[in-house]
Amino acid sequence: MKSYRKELWFNTSSRRDYINITGDVEKCLKESGVNEGVCLVNAMHITASVYINDNESGLIQDYDDWLEQLAPHEPVTHYRHNRTGEDNGDAHLKRQIMGREVVVAVSDGRLDFGPWEQIFYAEFDGRRRKRVLVKIIGE
Amino acid sequence: MKSYRKELWFNTSSRRDYINITGDVEKCLKESGVNEGVCLVNAMHITASVYINDNESGLIQDYDDWLEQLAPHEPVTHYRHNRTGEDNGDAHLKRQIMGREVVVAVSDGRLDFGPWEQIFYAEFDGRRRKRVLVKIIGE
Amino acid sequence: MKSYRKELWFNTSSRRDYINITGDVEKCLKESGVNEGVCLVNAMHITASVYINDNESGLIQDYDDWLEQLAPHEPVTHYRHNRTGEDNGDAHLKRQIMGREVVVAVSDGRLDFGPWEQIFYAEFDGRRRKRVLVKIIGE
Repeated sequence: MKSYRKELWFNTSSRRDYINITGDVEKCLKESGVNEGVCLVNAMHITASVYINDNESGLIQDYDDWLEQLAPHEPVTHYRHNRTGEDNGDAHLKRQIMGREVVVAVSDGRLDFGPWEQIFYAEFDGRRRKRVLVKIIGE
Repeated sequence: MKSYRKELWFNTSSRRDYINITGDVEKCLKESGVNEGVCLVNAMHITASVYINDNESGLIQDYDDWLEQLAPHEPVTHYRHNRTGEDNGDAHLKRQIMGREVVVAVSDGRLDFGPWEQIFYAEFDGRRRKRVLVKIIGE
Repeated sequence: MKSYRKELWFNTSSRRDYINITGDVEKCLKESGVNEGVCLVNAMHITASVYINDNESGLIQDYDDWLEQLAPHEPVTHYRHNRTGEDNGDAHLKRQIMGREVVVAVSDGRLDFGPWEQIFYAEFDGRRRKRVLVKIIGE
């Protein structure tokens, strides 16, 4: 069994951001030399997500509006978590909607994707260095 | 390490549908010959989900009502994504609640399930041919 | 390839509860002898979740309030599922927000975590014996 590990680092300029990391993960897969297996991609921070969906700017804005409606940032005093001195209570909730991780099949040396699947890093409390883990196992 | 891959195809007659695919995945597992490992089942389309829950018709109707309340189909002009000519903006949101994939343990040649776990394909933008990927790795 | 399986059992005294199981999973990993691979942790029941987030009591209360707002327990007659004699319709919905499972990378014999990642068992219909599956594969 082969095993591969890499961290991808991000530092977004805004609080929330959505970054297409499909190319980065494909590069990892090539480096891993794995032909058949699974590829785990997860946020290593608890106020960010990794998810798979469409690379379409309108949709990304729809997600952002919807998450802000389901778990608004303001008022920050709404969240008990923010009594610890944080202002990111909403980010912990948004991340649960979008998910922590994706597991992608690796077949014939490729990410085994349908026609529109793209991997995104979703940042809900950015403006600092944060990272994603790529772990690939197989043969 | 053994590795197995199969696509399951669907074409629902209504926009939204919920299909129990547990039997199909069990058939895949038998074909794979894997006794110990993991089984990934994921939607290959970004307006559909694979999830695990109860095979109870009232619950499925509860899910459908709830998702429609959290991300209503109408008015279709509500979603920026629909400016691309689509009318499935809601489906991309519903899919994030229900999830893209499940990973199921394989133990002793069986899907290692609790008493009520069943795998469902949830379609949020149907009436066309779409598919699910089953990937099994192990020994 | 090594393969390891263990069930963790719970019986919460209240309907809803959030239990940090990171230490239990670390113990499993040690027992497994796996150095490189993946660790799947999933609820075996369909009214409970396994998720990864912060071990902070305010946040846990925020999650509980938010889930109750998105899928309230009362009135129990609101849910068609409850016509079967159950009163846990809300629990099936809450579980979809928080997720069924997590997949954690195993690197160098450790759960490969970011600084604040902790694994939680979230119970939404407790006061009876229920369980979580830990499955580890790798080498």
